[in-house]
Amino acid sequence: MQEVKVFAPASVGNAIVGFDMLGIALEQPGDEIIARYSDAPGLRITAISGDEGRLSCDPQRNTAGLAALKLLEHLDKSGIGIELEVHKHMPFGSGLGSSAASAVGGAFAVNLLLGSPLSKKELLPFAMQGEQLASGAWHADNVAPSMLGGVVLIRDNASLDVQILPSPPDLHAAVVYPQVEILTKSARGVLAPHITLKQHVVQSGMLGGFIISLFTGDYALMQRSLHDTIIEPQRASLIPHFYEVQAAATEAGALGCSISGAGPSIIALCRGKDAAALAGEAMQSVFTAAGIAHKLYLSAINPNGVKAIL
Amino acid sequence: MQEVKVFAPASVGNAIVGFDMLGIALEQPGDEIIARYSDAPGLRITAISGDEGRLSCDPQRNTAGLAALKLLEHLDKSGIGIELEVHKHMPFGSGLGSSAASAVGGAFAVNLLLGSPLSKKELLPFAMQGEQLASGAWHADNVAPSMLGGVVLIRDNASLDVQILPSPPDLHAAVVYPQVEILTKSARGVLAPHITLKQHVVQSGMLGGFIISLFTGDYALMQRSLHDTIIEPQRASLIPHFYEVQAAATEAGALGCSISGAGPSIIALCRGKDAAALAGEAMQSVFTAAGIAHKLYLSAINPNGVKAIL
Repeated sequence: MQEVKVFAPASVGNAIVGFDMLGIALEQPGDEIIARYSDAPGLRITAISGDEGRLSCDPQRNTAGLAALKLLEHLDKSGIGIELEVHKHMPFGSGLGSSAASAVGGAFAVNLLLGSPLSKKELLPFAMQGEQLASGAWHADNVAPSMLGGVVLIRDNASLDVQILPSPPDLHAAVVYPQVEILTKSARGVLAPHITLKQHVVQSGMLGGFIISLFTGDYALMQRSLHDTIIEPQRASLIPHFYEVQAAATEAGALGCSISGAGPSIIALCRGKDAAALAGEAMQSVFTAAGIAHKLYLSAINPNGVKAIL
Repeated sequence: MQEVKVFAPASVGNAIVGFDMLGIALEQPGDEIIARYSDAPGLRITAISGDEGRLSCDPQRNTAGLAALKLLEHLDKSGIGIELEVHKHMPFGSGLGSSAASAVGGAFAVNLLLGSPLSKKELLPFAMQGEQLASGAWHADNVAPSMLGGVVLIRDNASLDVQILPSPPDLHAAVVYPQVEILTKSARGVLAPHITLKQHVVQSGMLGGFIISLFTGDYALMQRSLHDTIIEPQRASLIPHFYEVQAAATEAGALGCSISGAGPSIIALCRGKDAAALAGEAMQSVFTAAGIAHKLYLSAINPNGVKAIL
């Protein structure tokens, strides 16, 4: 194989109920990464698109590039000539795991080009190093779902003990991205370092209820569980019209609706494709009325994560 | 039916990883409650045993009695003549849900005597009122498992949204009760009202991992998940030799070991009956060496909760 092309999907960090410990893989949007052999030794990034000129072609300073470099170092193949192309198809700072998708795509593409010496789980630490370059933190709640697919629990972040949860086949997401930028670093800055023990108990009940509902397909339980009582109240003010959008989604029948990752994207989880379309439309109408440019993504839960494409 | 006799089992609140939101029903010990019709109108408690004279025969001031009274009021049957006997077979203030078992037994026995007009889930609020009398708080993490059996998640305490989790058939518990008394109220007093957001994330990962392991039977995941990073460090000093007992259980092969409820009982969860016996023996040896009187209870997870007995 002289060249591979992969698709690395967007993901919804936190998944409404699990701050820094849950993530959901979407079917779209996502990034495309191409890796091919080259005669010149070492890794080079030869093309980047969709980034509005914001990404570096220096592999050390590019999330896809750094993930690939770290993988090649680990495999003791840093000398091999490889070219990477990075084609971004989703916005930066949107709360959809854009940097994680690139990092996952970089590691996965190079691994695939080399004949897949490592498994997807084994690739996680390399993608994490790419992601860390962009986000400044070691968080797997976007990298793990983008790599593995599904709804993923980060049982332990340090050791990358990640667990893929089942998801009912008719679970769909409507994600609306209002085109206002929030950097993950600033969104983390608004969070108080402490919570009450009572808040911990309440939110853990939500997390537990959501996990059970994924195993059992109990949508009524899922609906009762899909509330973020800790992070959402602190970040909502960063997103214009957040509570109106949330109310619109809920009134349109969404099971739950909250901030995707660090925002500003807003996710509604819904039972069925049609319900997601209705919730998405309701959410959009709030931003349209307010004159805020936005994009809607409708997606089932992506069961596969990053994959080779033609 | 003129008379019924029921067995209400002990339970392990918190279940190591889920403070105030998880509980586990044990097969033994437990309380026996007898309810029978009587010619004299109203509810009376005619016998109490095993309480060392500490319980009141006034139904308003007795957990089993109050639970029964509240149920009878709800059913508009307060005038019916009923006698209750309360036979305690487990210690007070042990962290094994002694008061919850009596409250569950009182409500269940009277409901059974009346021909079971309410389901077990419908009986929960009445048992909760009995339990509240003893513990001073509205917590379902002992009442719900004693009533329903199994490993129970309290999704929401206020609305009593409780979810029974599956448990692998070879999951067993070894519980050692050192005979030093800790009142639930004092054990709550040592808890700081705040935790860090980081602690919340770490402990939620543990909770999520444990719930997943119950569904999948992944014992390695269960073992990695069975750690209490929030409550145990604050309460360990209330229990003599706690860390030695914990280490003994772990070295003997327990999957996890921590404080049962508010203590001083200590629970080790184990894979298989033999493993539980070994862990129990190891835990006992620490208390024996220290000259502390103690009792050992070995039990599978009780799948039924409170039940009628002959």
